[in-house]
Amino acid sequence: MRPAVVLLSGGLDSATCLAWARREGFAAHALTVDYGQRHAIEVTRAAEVARRLGAASHRIVGIDLTFLAGSALTDRTVGVPKSRGTTDIGSGIPTTYVPARNTVLLALALAWSESLGGRDLVIGVNAVDYSGYPDCRPEFLRAFAAVAGCATKAGAEGGAWRIHAPLLQLSKAEIVRRAVAWDVPYTLTVSCYDPAVSGESCGACDACLLRARGFLEAGVQDEAPGR
Amino acid sequence: MRPAVVLLSGGLDSATCLAWARREGFAAHALTVDYGQRHAIEVTRAAEVARRLGAASHRIVGIDLTFLAGSALTDRTVGVPKSRGTTDIGSGIPTTYVPARNTVLLALALAWSESLGGRDLVIGVNAVDYSGYPDCRPEFLRAFAAVAGCATKAGAEGGAWRIHAPLLQLSKAEIVRRAVAWDVPYTLTVSCYDPAVSGESCGACDACLLRARGFLEAGVQDEAPGR
Repeated sequence: MRPAVVLLSGGLDSATCLAWARREGFAAHALTVDYGQRHAIEVTRAAEVARRLGAASHRIVGIDLTFLAGSALTDRTVGVPKSRGTTDIGSGIPTTYVPARNTVLLALALAWSESLGGRDLVIGVNAVDYSGYPDCRPEFLRAFAAVAGCATKAGAEGGAWRIHAPLLQLSKAEIVRRAVAWDVPYTLTVSCYDPAVSGESCGACDACLLRARGFLEAGVQDEAPGR
Repeated sequence: MRPAVVLLSGGLDSATCLAWARREGFAAHALTVDYGQRHAIEVTRAAEVARRLGAASHRIVGIDLTFLAGSALTDRTVGVPKSRGTTDIGSGIPTTYVPARNTVLLALALAWSESLGGRDLVIGVNAVDYSGYPDCRPEFLRAFAAVAGCATKAGAEGGAWRIHAPLLQLSKAEIVRRAVAWDVPYTLTVSCYDPAVSGESCGACDACLLRARGFLEAGVQDEAPGR
């Protein structure tokens, strides 16, 4: 089985990506980056999700990004925006954007993948029901694939890298339907940017609103705790 | 003064880049990544070099990459190659290659730079007297600049990023001459991949051999301890 590194935050989207990678026949190595995010409960849930979905291995890499000023996810002096209308989400880049976060995450995935002898990375970015982050766009993924191709030993020897983003063109409702169909333990996943220490979701941040709308449109009852 | 993030390992090349950035008029923010490298003495020296060269700030970010198998710099079971002829250096990718290391370093520099409101990164890669690493090549730098342009808020708003590699086309002797001319405290810098705990260089790894040849060709006595 070919190895793929799957970025697994502990949220619904990345868990669904892990299930996708398993269905595609990859030996799926899950990578969780503990970067000091406000929603650290994600990290502990990720380990359980990886186990349940049959990841070949799961690794948690710690890197303290809390020095990145101005992001609501890493800078405790910036509040998470609440109760925006879902029509406002995606218009402009919100304060929950973490500078260059997906570049850092993919760089680490690339490093691990190369040491595993793989050529496949999987990331749960989405360009439809998303929060307006620049590093969730198709052009970003294409540019990163080009970097992977020349940054690595395998690339220098002529190999191409594949950056899989199986959720890229799906609505949140379509992601929910796939998660259910693929037995993703979604009740363990945490989408909230600002959960209680217990893991309970705030219900009002962009991520909570998008998740709620997705489950509603999919006709699925979200049975994660705190909903 | 425009802010630039300078990757500062504590070696001669990155110290010379920091001096370059200061001379170019940047507010130079030095970033040292402590990734579990074998030559950890670099990290402590980097702080002193940053102070001496007038960095606007210096930040050490810890990230444990020792799980990356197969690299002599992060995997303690792999030895650092010694006493290769300098003509062999650069022919093929040596075991001191750390998978995707420069991608990880530039990603972190990009993240910090964006949070500082900057658009300039400085990295001391070299394509002449180098060790054959794929992520020291001009095509890698161009590809990363394209990633920076679409991964970030500034990029999404139309700004271009500049990845400066002022040593790219210099020989090691030319780097030594600039270091001397620009008052780089080179005796504090550590180039060795496998130094003693005291900081003394091994004198036989590729980095030591390239440094020795550079000083010799520049006609400068290397007065760093242990030489």
